Amino acid sequence: MTGKRPRPPRGFRDFTPDLMILRKELFSRLEKLFQRYGYDPIDTPIVEYWETLAGKYGEEAENKLIWRFKDPWSGREYALRYDLTVPLARFIASHQDVVLPFKRYHIAPVWRHEEPQKGRYREFYQCDADIVGSSYPEADAEIVNLVVDALRVLGFNDGFKVRVNDRRLLTGIFEEELGIENPLPVYRAIDKLDKIGVEGVKRELMERIGLNGTTTEKILEIISLRGDPDETLDKIEEKYGNNKNVKEATRHLREMFDLIFERKLTLLDLSLVRGLDYYTGPILEVVLDKPKIGSVAGGGRYDNLIGIFLGKEIPATGVSIGIERIIDAGIELGIYTLRRKTVTQIQVIVVDRESYKYAWEVASRLRSMGFNTRIDVSRLKEQTQRKKARRLSIPVLAFIGLKEMESKTVTLYFTESGERIENIKVDEAKDIIQKRL
Amino acid sequence: MTGKRPRPPRGFRDFTPDLMILRKELFSRLEKLFQRYGYDPIDTPIVEYWETLAGKYGEEAENKLIWRFKDPWSGREYALRYDLTVPLARFIASHQDVVLPFKRYHIAPVWRHEEPQKGRYREFYQCDADIVGSSYPEADAEIVNLVVDALRVLGFNDGFKVRVNDRRLLTGIFEEELGIENPLPVYRAIDKLDKIGVEGVKRELMERIGLNGTTTEKILEIISLRGDPDETLDKIEEKYGNNKNVKEATRHLREMFDLIFERKLTLLDLSLVRGLDYYTGPILEVVLDKPKIGSVAGGGRYDNLIGIFLGKEIPATGVSIGIERIIDAGIELGIYTLRRKTVTQIQVIVVDRESYKYAWEVASRLRSMGFNTRIDVSRLKEQTQRKKARRLSIPVLAFIGLKEMESKTVTLYFTESGERIENIKVDEAKDIIQKRL
Repeated sequence: MTGKRPRPPRGFRDFTPDLMILRKELFSRLEKLFQRYGYDPIDTPIVEYWETLAGKYGEEAENKLIWRFKDPWSGREYALRYDLTVPLARFIASHQDVVLPFKRYHIAPVWRHEEPQKGRYREFYQCDADIVGSSYPEADAEIVNLVVDALRVLGFNDGFKVRVNDRRLLTGIFEEELGIENPLPVYRAIDKLDKIGVEGVKRELMERIGLNGTTTEKILEIISLRGDPDETLDKIEEKYGNNKNVKEATRHLREMFDLIFERKLTLLDLSLVRGLDYYTGPILEVVLDKPKIGSVAGGGRYDNLIGIFLGKEIPATGVSIGIERIIDAGIELGIYTLRRKTVTQIQVIVVDRESYKYAWEVASRLRSMGFNTRIDVSRLKEQTQRKKARRLSIPVLAFIGLKEMESKTVTLYFTESGERIENIKVDEAKDIIQKRL
Repeated sequence: MTGKRPRPPRGFRDFTPDLMILRKELFSRLEKLFQRYGYDPIDTPIVEYWETLAGKYGEEAENKLIWRFKDPWSGREYALRYDLTVPLARFIASHQDVVLPFKRYHIAPVWRHEEPQKGRYREFYQCDADIVGSSYPEADAEIVNLVVDALRVLGFNDGFKVRVNDRRLLTGIFEEELGIENPLPVYRAIDKLDKIGVEGVKRELMERIGLNGTTTEKILEIISLRGDPDETLDKIEEKYGNNKNVKEATRHLREMFDLIFERKLTLLDLSLVRGLDYYTGPILEVVLDKPKIGSVAGGGRYDNLIGIFLGKEIPATGVSIGIERIIDAGIELGIYTLRRKTVTQIQVIVVDRESYKYAWEVASRLRSMGFNTRIDVSRLKEQTQRKKARRLSIPVLAFIGLKEMESKTVTLYFTESGERIENIKVDEAKDIIQKRL
């Protein structure tokens, strides 16, 4: 294989330090926020038995997007984690001693066998927060408040909207007005609205599902309802309020919106359906005002999913933050930069080979003071050490030569200001560096 | 599937919040330490093309332990990451713009198709630190200093030893004394010493490899050399110092030990070989004084591995910390506990349904003050809210009823001390809580 330049598999990525430093910072902000709300961390394996994932996500996922494979030894079928929600449901069924309601977050990669393209990868992180064990609107409201705060800690201030809908609204209206008993295929067509436009959805409804023109037009009219939550709920109740599903949904949504702190950022939008089969109640999606890149978070209520595993139903609701798209958008908008190429704050520059051991001691002392400190391990010339430190934009250089060794001092150089301070006792270095970092 | 209780796949684990809180704390300590040494984070995909991993680890890994599978659509062969070292080598070959020496850490899961047993899983985390681009003993010494500090930040103080050897010592001595030209099969037999004992190794050498009795006895004599690094190096030089490999190795090791800060924790031990094929120079392993559970960290120099991918050789050295065994040992020794069942610090208890909205506002204020705060989302009775908070050992309860709502106050209860403080203005709660947490 000599000479070949291997790459990560197609659709997979390496993360270099500049990207990892940014990613870790953003994951850490989200993690702190989740913990502020009292959500606890869990983790599940990256593989599940195939039958755990089968039948949960819908046709496309099942037949095309889930990475499944056979254990070559046992012949047992496995699948790579496709999202963090079905594993959570399985987790709840496996750990029946958890205290309900169970509030958990999970920041972890998932895998989808997509055709790779710009911004779309086969392995990507999701950041999920869910509440298991409450059927009340309070739980859905907390999830909306959490996702609004999440976008804010990620730096998007008010530059986004939370679109909300409820599966029961569409189910009820479709049933009442159009006699549609299984709305899932219709949802799947509507879900493509952003991608294929109104005309595209119309074609899907008529040609693929076989609905007639009147029904199709009616559906398009219904899903065009959107706007301020209260006003839109008034309209819906007036028109379709006799239907049991609609009645339940409007009551649930009114109580939910009542507990949302930032209602001005929310929108009731009947064209929102979400692509996954398992949702049963309120659903939500976050879209940025710019750039136009589709949703950056999505979620909703799935009251039946855990029951599939457990045999008894446990209601649940949650949200998944699409951190990869948010990172792409944040870089495009200039909210995030990839400026930091290293975590290193101080490079100890070994000026004379004879002062090497003293230089190591100084590096060790600087580390004890809390500074991220590198030292040469390659016997490089002083000039080369400096050049490499510059390429990584390390902010402080600490020179150690014979002079410093004899006087038990260090010479500091701050690269941004160009300031150079000689003859510093190592103990005094802490304050001097801290003030300038 | 109704009624079935699914489990994670055999050999895989879920992590509940108590375990995750501990794991995150330990990962974070290691991460801070790696950064203190100026090591930068990277990440690589969990899958690599099979040919990237093939031929790197040795027979057993290749034929049995690597999880490999075919993409059902393309037929392309993939493998789950088996360690973090080969992916690093591939990373270096894929990213030729990295500044050398490249110091990186990587905390991530790997997968091995082992037969599951107590303490041995098919998915487990490794915490690796490596230096790419230096062939000097300084790099190996830094890795030893780093691993000693790692065991300390993990709470093991001086309760461990770092066993060191150098592949070139054994290669040189075997070649010189016994005419063995390919020592890899002999290494594999010696590597089983801890598991099968001296008699077991003897049988392996004679029966499986076909060595005669004299050679076998000689090998056992050589690998029984161990002790203080300087004294042991003196003995080796006296006996085998004419061999070129031995000469190189002893010089390298002397310079390396000279830069190790805690030499009293190190040991030169000729029976250490490490199981992987790719090592070329100094190798190391950390063993705890107790419990007796095999090595908890291991690593060494692998100067040829990157060359396989890149076509030109780049020296490298590093260590992998076996955090799973360390966690098991730490729990057994009582260094770690699983006491914390939640990150939540304050549970807001809703006493009257009518004060619900005020309670939500207080929860939000407490979060702004930096406290991890939960609130009921299930309309539970006061008593049930308290019972659940107690089951999770949440340290602070904040009661909100009509009285508190009207006076814009909160009543605080500290579960450990039993202290109850009424009539606190929300703004004043911060200091009161902080002092008692």
